[in-house]
Amino acid sequence: MRLRHKPWASEFIAQQSNYAIANPEQHKGKWHEVFGNNNPIHIEVGTGKGQFIVGMAQKNPHINYIGIELFDSVIVAALQKVVDLQLPNLKLLNVNAKNLTEYFADNEIERVYLNFSDPWPKSKHSKRRLTYKTFLALYEKILVKGGEIHFKTDNQGLFEFSLISFSEYGLQLKFLSLDLHNSDYEGNIMTEYEEKFSSKGQRIYRVEAKYMNE
Amino acid sequence: MRLRHKPWASEFIAQQSNYAIANPEQHKGKWHEVFGNNNPIHIEVGTGKGQFIVGMAQKNPHINYIGIELFDSVIVAALQKVVDLQLPNLKLLNVNAKNLTEYFADNEIERVYLNFSDPWPKSKHSKRRLTYKTFLALYEKILVKGGEIHFKTDNQGLFEFSLISFSEYGLQLKFLSLDLHNSDYEGNIMTEYEEKFSSKGQRIYRVEAKYMNE
Ligand SMILES: C[S@@+](CC[C@H](N)C(=O)[O-])C[C@H]1O[C@@H](n2cnc3c(N)ncnc32)[C@H](O)[C@@H]1O
Ligand SMILES: C[S@@+](CC[C@H](N)C(=O)[O-])C[C@H]1O[C@@H](n2cnc3c(N)ncnc32)[C@H](O)[C@@H]1O
Repeated sequence: MRLRHKPWASEFIAQQSNYAIANPEQHKGKWHEVFGNNNPIHIEVGTGKGQFIVGMAQKNPHINYIGIELFDSVIVAALQKVVDLQLPNLKLLNVNAKNLTEYFADNEIERVYLNFSDPWPKSKHSKRRLTYKTFLALYEKILVKGGEIHFKTDNQGLFEFSLISFSEYGLQLKFLSLDLHNSDYEGNIMTEYEEKFSSKGQRIYRVEAKYMNE
Repeated sequence: MRLRHKPWASEFIAQQSNYAIANPEQHKGKWHEVFGNNNPIHIEVGTGKGQFIVGMAQKNPHINYIGIELFDSVIVAALQKVVDLQLPNLKLLNVNAKNLTEYFADNEIERVYLNFSDPWPKSKHSKRRLTYKTFLALYEKILVKGGEIHFKTDNQGLFEFSLISFSEYGLQLKFLSLDLHNSDYEGNIMTEYEEKFSSKGQRIYRVEAKYMNE
């Protein structure tokens, strides 16, 4: 993700407090009040410029979405889309996913999306991968029993690591494609990275993994 | 596998009863006597012409190997290699793997190898795949607790199916490569099919899956 300095980014985020939620810890356990309904909540960790989650929110009006992105210079692009479309079922958080349990109560979330997460290819950095066991423990805490992670990536090494990590954590693989764009999977919503890499002929990997804690 | 009629095949197999074991059910629970030692026993299901298991037996003299192959016209090629090399730690069975529990007692086997198993691509034939749950139950019965399946294939659909099947059966994935020949995996012994497909530029997939019944 190219990081240009965008001094106006934090200002824009502050102005759009209806879509970019400023103090998410205040809504812990009460996100249904923020959305004004009891629909299931799906989060995306590492939302980037938001193409995926905006597309999902448009397609599935009866699901509430929360996009989580560390960098304000990136999340502003997602925010601009939500503001333009006035989407009622999508909120954005400009926070670090390592603090997820400060923002969400136990069982509050139904699904976690991870798309093209940073691969951290060096093994000494494996703990930073969003599919490392400490992150799987965070997701487990905020997810409902039997909650799911849906993961896409072009990165072979990260996908291999993640399948092993899911399996060793006790998650069950429910769906798997080693070449998503040449599969019979329907209704795929592409992310920015997915468009970029697939147009270069890179394979896209996808898996759905389920917590077996019901 | 091309099946030419080889009338001499069954005769050759009968002659070489030291290597091609004629009535395997008679040795159920007593395979250590056949090998004359207490070394661990690894089996390969669908051995074909035997290049893999012969290579493994040469490389690992302290492991006993049993290659299982349905077609006499194919297994003769494996048998010829064993006879030529006079390998003491490799036996061949010209039988159908669906009857494995007739030939092996509970806990008698330490590892199952599956290499380039027939893909049976039509979903109505999925029960015939050697990684279908009924086969996983057969392997579980004859394997020691915590026993492993080591599986290689070039077939994307079969690999996807098998990962899901392993996971749903409760096996844990311990090692996985989505491009074996461009990985840091060392000491790979190629099968006949592996040589053929990898020389055409096909990726080879590999996984190790462990029964969690200890
Ligand atoms: C490679 S980009 C992919 C963006 C988008 N999902 C896509 O597929 O186009 C990964 C994004 O994850 C964000 N990210 C990485 N670690 C994060 C964390 N701990 N919390 C929130 N966002 C994170 C990065 O800032 C970056 O925008
Ligand atoms: C595609 S070939 C692969 C041969 C070899 N493993 C290789 O990689 O070169 C699959 C082999 O499995 C054998 N096979 C399939 N089903 C079997 C069964 N139920 N029992 C024993 N052998 C079987 C077939 O006869 C065939 O020789």
